[in-house]
Amino acid sequence: MPACLAVDWGTTHRRLFQIDAAGGLVARDSDNRGILAVGDFTTEIAALVARAGGAPLLLAGMIGSNRGWVEAPYVPAPAGIDALAAAIVEPLPGVFIVPGVRFDDPAHPDIMRGEEVQCFGARALGLIGDGLACFPGTHSKWIEIEDGGIARFRTIMTGDILAALKARSILSDLLDHEPGIDAAFVDGVDHALDTPDLTADLFTVRARVVTGALAAADAASHISGLLIGTDVRIGLGRLRADVVPVIGTPALTARFALALNRAGRETIVVDGESAFMAGAAALATRLPGTTA
Amino acid sequence: MPACLAVDWGTTHRRLFQIDAAGGLVARDSDNRGILAVGDFTTEIAALVARAGGAPLLLAGMIGSNRGWVEAPYVPAPAGIDALAAAIVEPLPGVFIVPGVRFDDPAHPDIMRGEEVQCFGARALGLIGDGLACFPGTHSKWIEIEDGGIARFRTIMTGDILAALKARSILSDLLDHEPGIDAAFVDGVDHALDTPDLTADLFTVRARVVTGALAAADAASHISGLLIGTDVRIGLGRLRADVVPVIGTPALTARFALALNRAGRETIVVDGESAFMAGAAALATRLPGTTA
Repeated sequence: MPACLAVDWGTTHRRLFQIDAAGGLVARDSDNRGILAVGDFTTEIAALVARAGGAPLLLAGMIGSNRGWVEAPYVPAPAGIDALAAAIVEPLPGVFIVPGVRFDDPAHPDIMRGEEVQCFGARALGLIGDGLACFPGTHSKWIEIEDGGIARFRTIMTGDILAALKARSILSDLLDHEPGIDAAFVDGVDHALDTPDLTADLFTVRARVVTGALAAADAASHISGLLIGTDVRIGLGRLRADVVPVIGTPALTARFALALNRAGRETIVVDGESAFMAGAAALATRLPGTTA
Repeated sequence: MPACLAVDWGTTHRRLFQIDAAGGLVARDSDNRGILAVGDFTTEIAALVARAGGAPLLLAGMIGSNRGWVEAPYVPAPAGIDALAAAIVEPLPGVFIVPGVRFDDPAHPDIMRGEEVQCFGARALGLIGDGLACFPGTHSKWIEIEDGGIARFRTIMTGDILAALKARSILSDLLDHEPGIDAAFVDGVDHALDTPDLTADLFTVRARVVTGALAAADAASHISGLLIGTDVRIGLGRLRADVVPVIGTPALTARFALALNRAGRETIVVDGESAFMAGAAALATRLPGTTA
């Protein structure tokens, strides 16, 4: 494979991985130059090209959306890594944009940008196989992998809703506390796994605090548990999945793994950055003009 | 009854009703001097006392909470209007604060401030009887009335969550459109009445817009339908209620009444301000030192 500079470029953040020809990490960097923070993509891309030093620049995530730099149209699911690689867009010589994946389900159409790289990376590392996998985040993804490809998936707005409640709602004061992984969290998870009444149960948290039944310091943990328990309830759906890989940041995978355990599932936790890097390396061997 | 100045004093807004000795409306006013906007309650209360012109000043809503002026402790449910009146607090001569109601259910403890006045008012007007009643709002209340009193209730954070999503989430652009009461709204209601997966279905709206399956202009209506359908699904629960009164502002009661119709219920729509006024008048006859 060629050495490359791979960028996981999201809405609010950006993570850079300088990868050598053996797939090893040379340097890692992250900043808050998400697509919404960047006014002039031309300058930003030129800086990254310079930083890549002649190696291919591989961009994934929201940078390829209609709000990013150049749109890389979604590949329809089911999609394997070869279909994804074949749809990579090259707006400038040596600069490549990974497309997202869309799922044209009549009941629940869905889209992703970025998680597909982590998914194929975790697979390339041999850490996940066919079956259900969980990618917790601002917009959690539950991906069903079949024959090594992304067959079906569902997005749940867990992190986004938590941030919105924290920014502006009756719960915002309570959410100033840092949520823990504690008894209050587990109580929330257990309740939400069994009870599909999140928009009511969230207010119950406030009522419990006001009436003295719950310490204010425990409310954030409990709210996090309610949201993550709901995520796991919906994500598992009626699927049979005894072991569920969880791919993401350590702070989130720990919470989701515990929630999955409470739902009676075993978990395999995979570091999201390692998965992204492996996915980028796997895609780099498939770039136009590259010999694997 | 004595003439009085009744104030429905909420978190962000305040509504004033000057009521004559026959219970009729002399003047009505509203402003954005909610409790969070008021720095100095002493001055504010003095202005209202002057405005009441010697008549009793009756304050209800969040003004009696621990974030308001003087706390009026919650009355435990089941609570009738006499129990509510008996717990009215009089911090200054002629100035009365109506307490809220708390429901000490082990599974779903809950609290209200303000809706209890509307509830007893709608009853005093003969518009609602025993049974389930819906009070849509920032925090919708579903109250079960037994023997004329508030027996049980549940709060659902529908309006608060919608405002939070509009203020700060991936859906905020879509929520810039004004939600209509149209086919997209009904689709959302119908889906949410049957499917308890709100945090996933909200993202589906965005996926539909991005993939062209839903017009961006219809998204706000659909999101409103999903949230209100969820509210009605939870609010009805397993209760048998063929006819459900809906008490609130015209914009909200129209939406909730339609959602209840889609759930197979008949509705009686009651104007929330009229209900509050009637409730305030009924409480005014029960103030200390007043002869009914």
